Amino acid sequence: MQNVLIAGQWRPSESSGSFQAENPATMQPLPDQYPVSTWRDCDAALTAAVEAAAQLRAMPVERIAQFLDRLAERIEARKDELVQMANAETALPASPRLADVELPRTTNQLRQAAAAVREGTWSMPTIDTKQNIRSVYGPIGPVAVFGPNNFPFAFNSAAGGDFVAAIAAGNPVIAKANTSHPGTTRLLAEEAFAAVQDVGLPAATVQLIYRTSHEDGERLVSDERIGATGYTGSRSAGLKLKKAADEAGKPIYLELSSVNPVVILPGAITERGNDLVSQFTSSCLMGTGQFCTNPGLAVLIAGDSTTAFVDRLKLAFQEAPVGTLLSKNVADSLTRGISELTWAGAEVLVGGAGGGGRGYSHANTLLRASGKQFIENPRALQTEAFGNASLIVVAESVDEAAQVLEHLEGNLTGCIYSDTQGSDDALYDRLEPILRRKVGRLLNDKMPTGVAVSPAMNHGGPFPATGHPGFTAVGIPASIHRFAMLQCYDNVRPHRLPTILQDKNPTGKTWRFIDGQWSQADVGPTV
Amino acid sequence: MQNVLIAGQWRPSESSGSFQAENPATMQPLPDQYPVSTWRDCDAALTAAVEAAAQLRAMPVERIAQFLDRLAERIEARKDELVQMANAETALPASPRLADVELPRTTNQLRQAAAAVREGTWSMPTIDTKQNIRSVYGPIGPVAVFGPNNFPFAFNSAAGGDFVAAIAAGNPVIAKANTSHPGTTRLLAEEAFAAVQDVGLPAATVQLIYRTSHEDGERLVSDERIGATGYTGSRSAGLKLKKAADEAGKPIYLELSSVNPVVILPGAITERGNDLVSQFTSSCLMGTGQFCTNPGLAVLIAGDSTTAFVDRLKLAFQEAPVGTLLSKNVADSLTRGISELTWAGAEVLVGGAGGGGRGYSHANTLLRASGKQFIENPRALQTEAFGNASLIVVAESVDEAAQVLEHLEGNLTGCIYSDTQGSDDALYDRLEPILRRKVGRLLNDKMPTGVAVSPAMNHGGPFPATGHPGFTAVGIPASIHRFAMLQCYDNVRPHRLPTILQDKNPTGKTWRFIDGQWSQADVGPTV
Repeated sequence: MQNVLIAGQWRPSESSGSFQAENPATMQPLPDQYPVSTWRDCDAALTAAVEAAAQLRAMPVERIAQFLDRLAERIEARKDELVQMANAETALPASPRLADVELPRTTNQLRQAAAAVREGTWSMPTIDTKQNIRSVYGPIGPVAVFGPNNFPFAFNSAAGGDFVAAIAAGNPVIAKANTSHPGTTRLLAEEAFAAVQDVGLPAATVQLIYRTSHEDGERLVSDERIGATGYTGSRSAGLKLKKAADEAGKPIYLELSSVNPVVILPGAITERGNDLVSQFTSSCLMGTGQFCTNPGLAVLIAGDSTTAFVDRLKLAFQEAPVGTLLSKNVADSLTRGISELTWAGAEVLVGGAGGGGRGYSHANTLLRASGKQFIENPRALQTEAFGNASLIVVAESVDEAAQVLEHLEGNLTGCIYSDTQGSDDALYDRLEPILRRKVGRLLNDKMPTGVAVSPAMNHGGPFPATGHPGFTAVGIPASIHRFAMLQCYDNVRPHRLPTILQDKNPTGKTWRFIDGQWSQADVGPTV
Repeated sequence: MQNVLIAGQWRPSESSGSFQAENPATMQPLPDQYPVSTWRDCDAALTAAVEAAAQLRAMPVERIAQFLDRLAERIEARKDELVQMANAETALPASPRLADVELPRTTNQLRQAAAAVREGTWSMPTIDTKQNIRSVYGPIGPVAVFGPNNFPFAFNSAAGGDFVAAIAAGNPVIAKANTSHPGTTRLLAEEAFAAVQDVGLPAATVQLIYRTSHEDGERLVSDERIGATGYTGSRSAGLKLKKAADEAGKPIYLELSSVNPVVILPGAITERGNDLVSQFTSSCLMGTGQFCTNPGLAVLIAGDSTTAFVDRLKLAFQEAPVGTLLSKNVADSLTRGISELTWAGAEVLVGGAGGGGRGYSHANTLLRASGKQFIENPRALQTEAFGNASLIVVAESVDEAAQVLEHLEGNLTGCIYSDTQGSDDALYDRLEPILRRKVGRLLNDKMPTGVAVSPAMNHGGPFPATGHPGFTAVGIPASIHRFAMLQCYDNVRPHRLPTILQDKNPTGKTWRFIDGQWSQADVGPTV
């Protein structure tokens, strides 16, 4: 049985059982046994994390930056083993996906965060010189991170986006592995802990447990000692954690589900239908459709060219190879999702049945419903069929399309394709305001599946896409804010202020909001 | 019966009953009858607000700024009537409190918000020129505001902090009057609606209801049409609204309760004990102790000078005049709070009984408990006795004082007084890290009852002081953020971007985060 990492020790779990991961391509269990932790593991991790949080606060931020850089180097040094393990646990292609896209993205995030920590602007130091009031975002306390199944590196609870953001804000992390890739998470946590030791951070800055009961998960996110939680995963499990955290008044950032509507206006179909068929198909089927921003819903307006467009889409879905899904759970849930859509009246145009690829798999599936059907049963027809399935809604008119959009829940993304000659502009102007308030990221003429790690990115959106529409899970520095609390210093003596709030700009480069202006200067007498 | 303001009409409520406010100084009901709205009023307001939200979004922000300025002017023009009404409803002194402090503070907030709207930096426009991704904080949707009893102007649901922040972010407001000052709220809503008409905002930008059932309040904050809620008031009512909003995934910003611990270290007592007696007494009794940041808890370390200090405090509390409380409810709840403290073992040093002042009143009350008692029963001894009562906790040692602080819940503020010669420095360094993570605003040598409207202010703190430690209810621009959602534009065609995200800086003054640097420049080819 593998060890958990608690309080600076890789040690046996106080476990209530064990589990194994499975290779989804072979449908065979992988050899390692992982423990299911009892509350005693969680409790020990929380106690150690509180102490680490206090120690971290007293350290120069440079050491946190060094840790992030060091972890990136260590991940690169162990790349082959990581890729091999993640491929065995997820069936995501070793190359290009894991080795050439997701791993570099992960180390890039770490290095961007290291730069943000050194630079300091993320913490929004704000100074009122006249009243001598100063404030800054400081660490929120120990952060629990629950990573998703679909990005074994970039959203991993021991190296991915939430982990990086929580550490960058100065918090220790208690990582809860995704149970479909415990081995990948273990390797990453080994490197993270080694990096902790390399640079001399508190030993409990990074801790790892693999699995708990649902009850203990809820207890963890609502424990008095926790600062906040980051969760990416299924809506049902996420809502249970949210309820527990909310009742305790503990911030929890959730990424739950999203069908990512893509509106394709008639002029765009006429102008560049073939190109759109290939863009949509490849965005829908990329990674076997298992992206958070996978376009699960297309909204079209009826017409001859739309009918022809759908026919071409059918063909493209049919002809595309069938990928392997991440797990038996994902395959089962995809089958269930498609059943709910058909039960609600959607018609299967292509696919619809399980199997057809290597291991856990499901035929590439395209469904169709009318705008009227969607409006009459919007909840069921927004069921997220996570995987290689998408629903096309064909509205009879722009009014009906507008009503379809009005019935959307919150989503991460929404796209509108329009022609370049202006024939779609009136439709765009009609639909955009409705879509805009439902989504975190609005795109033009571009599929949503690429999520750039940019300061301007918003990987967030209104509930139930996430728990709060003011935060993003991707993009540095904004994603760091989630794990920070606003700390004001009123009349505090100068030498007792955090360095970043003292008169002298500690880096000479940090942007600070001084008397209503962003500035890199020191505070001082006007000269 | 007074009218409600719904969908641009002052019209009769669809009510289930009526209520009257009371003059707390005379304990007599005031003449006006106010309706208790049924859900039909709420429903109509929500529908109108959704339409207003869409219209507001299409208007230039300059019009919102004009509205805020215009409302400030209108409030000043009706000052005498407003002060008279607020005085009758709250018994807060007409002067200086209402006329010379709170009303100017209220108009100042409006004007600061108008300036922030014009200037635009609050919305944090962020531009990635290389990847053409741009984001900005935009309106979150209709906002429900529940104002508190203790600031009839500055936190009024139709003119105060949350109202101003919600409007500045571009949202319509559904104001729910505090039922202890419906008349003041009505006058302010009259001016707000007149200002809406003056500048040509959508008619339902400001709406007013006076009272609902608890059930309808919960339904309102969790309705699909609501964007977010601001609530300041009692913990019990606030937690019910929070539960309803949380379950619906609707952001709710709460200010619930705070005992605002003040730590006075031994050296400070020796150095300037008399001054501290007078500062503490006046901060505790100001406004009859009915400030959110009233110091309800002092933490001292035992010693001869501490004993003498407490004796002088007793005298000062005894000698100070007894003020009028805001309502019968406040008087009853203060009596209950003091009972809970004494039941938990606190000793009454001064006061303890109801009455003694004009109308609803309670003797100035000082209680004492030992550090040991506090540590054994921290929940009960943190009961907020809202009003002119404070608890002194005398710890036997700095270790015990540290344990007392460890047992604190989240608070808005925490103060540490220390001597100026360095004799308290070691104690400060021991206690500050513990207090820092429990409070939103940390003060040195200053009482917490002044809350400056400054960009650097944090009027917030960890639960249960508020619902989330990352937000402030006071201070512009930061307080505006609560009512905004992050909206990203990815590859959106230039002319379709919000003005503030287009290449040209629309004001020439707005700070935008462009490729990792704050800048007031246009985006353009490097020259």
